[in-house]
Amino acid sequence: MRFVHDILPQRVRFAAGAAAESLAAEIGLLGGERVMVIAAPSQKDLAERITAGLPVAVHHDDVTMHVPVDTAERARTVAAAHEADVVVSIGGGSATGLAKAVALSSALPIVAVPTTYAGSEATPMWGLTEGSVKTTGTDPKVLPRAIVYDAALTLGLPVELSVASGLNALAHCVDSLWAPRTDPLDQALALEGARALRVGLPQVVARPDGLEGREQALYGAYLAAAAFASAGSGLHHKICHVLGGMFNLPHAQTHAVVLPHVLAFNAPFVPEAERRLAVALDAPTADEGLARLRGRLRAPRSLRDLGMPSDGIARAAEAVVAAAPEGNPRPVTPQAVTALIEAAWEGADPR
Amino acid sequence: MRFVHDILPQRVRFAAGAAAESLAAEIGLLGGERVMVIAAPSQKDLAERITAGLPVAVHHDDVTMHVPVDTAERARTVAAAHEADVVVSIGGGSATGLAKAVALSSALPIVAVPTTYAGSEATPMWGLTEGSVKTTGTDPKVLPRAIVYDAALTLGLPVELSVASGLNALAHCVDSLWAPRTDPLDQALALEGARALRVGLPQVVARPDGLEGREQALYGAYLAAAAFASAGSGLHHKICHVLGGMFNLPHAQTHAVVLPHVLAFNAPFVPEAERRLAVALDAPTADEGLARLRGRLRAPRSLRDLGMPSDGIARAAEAVVAAAPEGNPRPVTPQAVTALIEAAWEGADPR
Repeated sequence: MRFVHDILPQRVRFAAGAAAESLAAEIGLLGGERVMVIAAPSQKDLAERITAGLPVAVHHDDVTMHVPVDTAERARTVAAAHEADVVVSIGGGSATGLAKAVALSSALPIVAVPTTYAGSEATPMWGLTEGSVKTTGTDPKVLPRAIVYDAALTLGLPVELSVASGLNALAHCVDSLWAPRTDPLDQALALEGARALRVGLPQVVARPDGLEGREQALYGAYLAAAAFASAGSGLHHKICHVLGGMFNLPHAQTHAVVLPHVLAFNAPFVPEAERRLAVALDAPTADEGLARLRGRLRAPRSLRDLGMPSDGIARAAEAVVAAAPEGNPRPVTPQAVTALIEAAWEGADPR
Repeated sequence: MRFVHDILPQRVRFAAGAAAESLAAEIGLLGGERVMVIAAPSQKDLAERITAGLPVAVHHDDVTMHVPVDTAERARTVAAAHEADVVVSIGGGSATGLAKAVALSSALPIVAVPTTYAGSEATPMWGLTEGSVKTTGTDPKVLPRAIVYDAALTLGLPVELSVASGLNALAHCVDSLWAPRTDPLDQALALEGARALRVGLPQVVARPDGLEGREQALYGAYLAAAAFASAGSGLHHKICHVLGGMFNLPHAQTHAVVLPHVLAFNAPFVPEAERRLAVALDAPTADEGLARLRGRLRAPRSLRDLGMPSDGIARAAEAVVAAAPEGNPRPVTPQAVTALIEAAWEGADPR
């Protein structure tokens, strides 16, 4: 047992239906008197409703995916012009990401109100894009000081997207078990996240308008992000990153398809983690637990269905071998990766 | 799911045999140039060895149990006189507690090097005594910035004390499952701690000079303290507090005796936590898991053996009912508490 685990300060607040009160409490604790609210136009009504009691200096809705640098610059200018002393982000990864861009240059505290399972609110990682080039980094000052989780705000997330996004979060949990910087604390968080997602996602499918499943899924997504931010990217994420970049595949769905294949590949080489993941997934084996869960969720099965061309397999395998993380529990050979991607492409059972 | 979980910043470093290097790394990160080293005379050699490479301004060995206020005042004066910019505590709860007393008035950062399973290093709780009156409080600035765990430093802890202290830590884990401020994150940490203690403590007994069991036990004790600090004192701790205060019983041993009785009492009222604790203890039920573990550890069985008089049971029961935490999953009636304490006094099987 040899590790360094950096615990960063954050207050995590869970209360369904209480976003406005939770937010008011956090702004009060921070002493915020000039709040900048960041929310995309699609979240305008929600944002106005839950910030109605706050001392809002400015509402900012100029939110774009992947945080282009000029979008970030405009938001920073607005924050300065209105002398904002705290930033509230309401929405998914794009809103949180833009708030982080503001915090990165201003050190303003962020209170994040997530409405998806993206998880960015639980990490100190930021990203900016210029043209097609993405720059990322890690900085403790972009970690939101507080997260206000209100499962009622995720009721609008369509079931299919909830499932894909939830399986993406589950992939973060599973990959954290063997990622380069993984440690026992990351693994404990990741297993708790897997358990919550296993419990919550089927409930979201069964009763999309129920809060219980949404709450568990949101809690699981939080843990997935926290574990992943600390443990780093494992083999699964490297594969998905290569596939996504090469063939422009949808992010969450790609994760959902690839995960069982990577799990089957690595599991025999991490027997203890496998056994604990099986318990978290409430099944005799981790593979079987994931298969059952995917069945209940009617998860996407093949990369072919997502639009990946068959002649891309060899190229992708080569890139994955080159990008494979050091220390993956099982050696990442060209043959093995080719077989793995082939199976995922076909939608075959994991080998 | 409704909770507020406050994550406080701390770096946790685990590396057996590497206390000196770990400590140097942490002092470097803090920019410490005038280190005050707090360690009892019994730890003098150890303290000198692992701080040999540090810019030590002063070694301070005036350490007393329960941190009497005059001991605290002397330490604060020494810190000021030597212009210390960081405090390193080496030892058990008394050394950590004294460092916290210094930090409480000076806000100096602490790096804690624990040599026992006391767990104080993982909490923002401080305590001071004046005569027989103990004052306690919680302040984020007394939470050590970093913890240097080196299981090799615990090899000197006798097996019997390791067991009692380890079962005390396990009691923190179990009690955290139903304590007043418990939340799902506390429970996840507590269950991981219970798992580690279940794995580690029998190894400590089987091979007292082996590092593996010591390492797991130390890791479990860390988690126990972290969960407990966040979740608060549950019924178990209230009972032990009453018994310890009334009859001057040994702290850790009292916990070891009482725990199975409180678990049996509350378990039927928290079925999900019970099931998860059973998994952590690797047994069909939590009660059975704890009984098996206690058997392997030859844990103390009765309050009678610890010196509690039989005519104290009624008095103790009355005080426990008065002190019982609100929201205990099972109603704490005089009859039930009397039966519980009777069973613990006799060393009977939990009912």
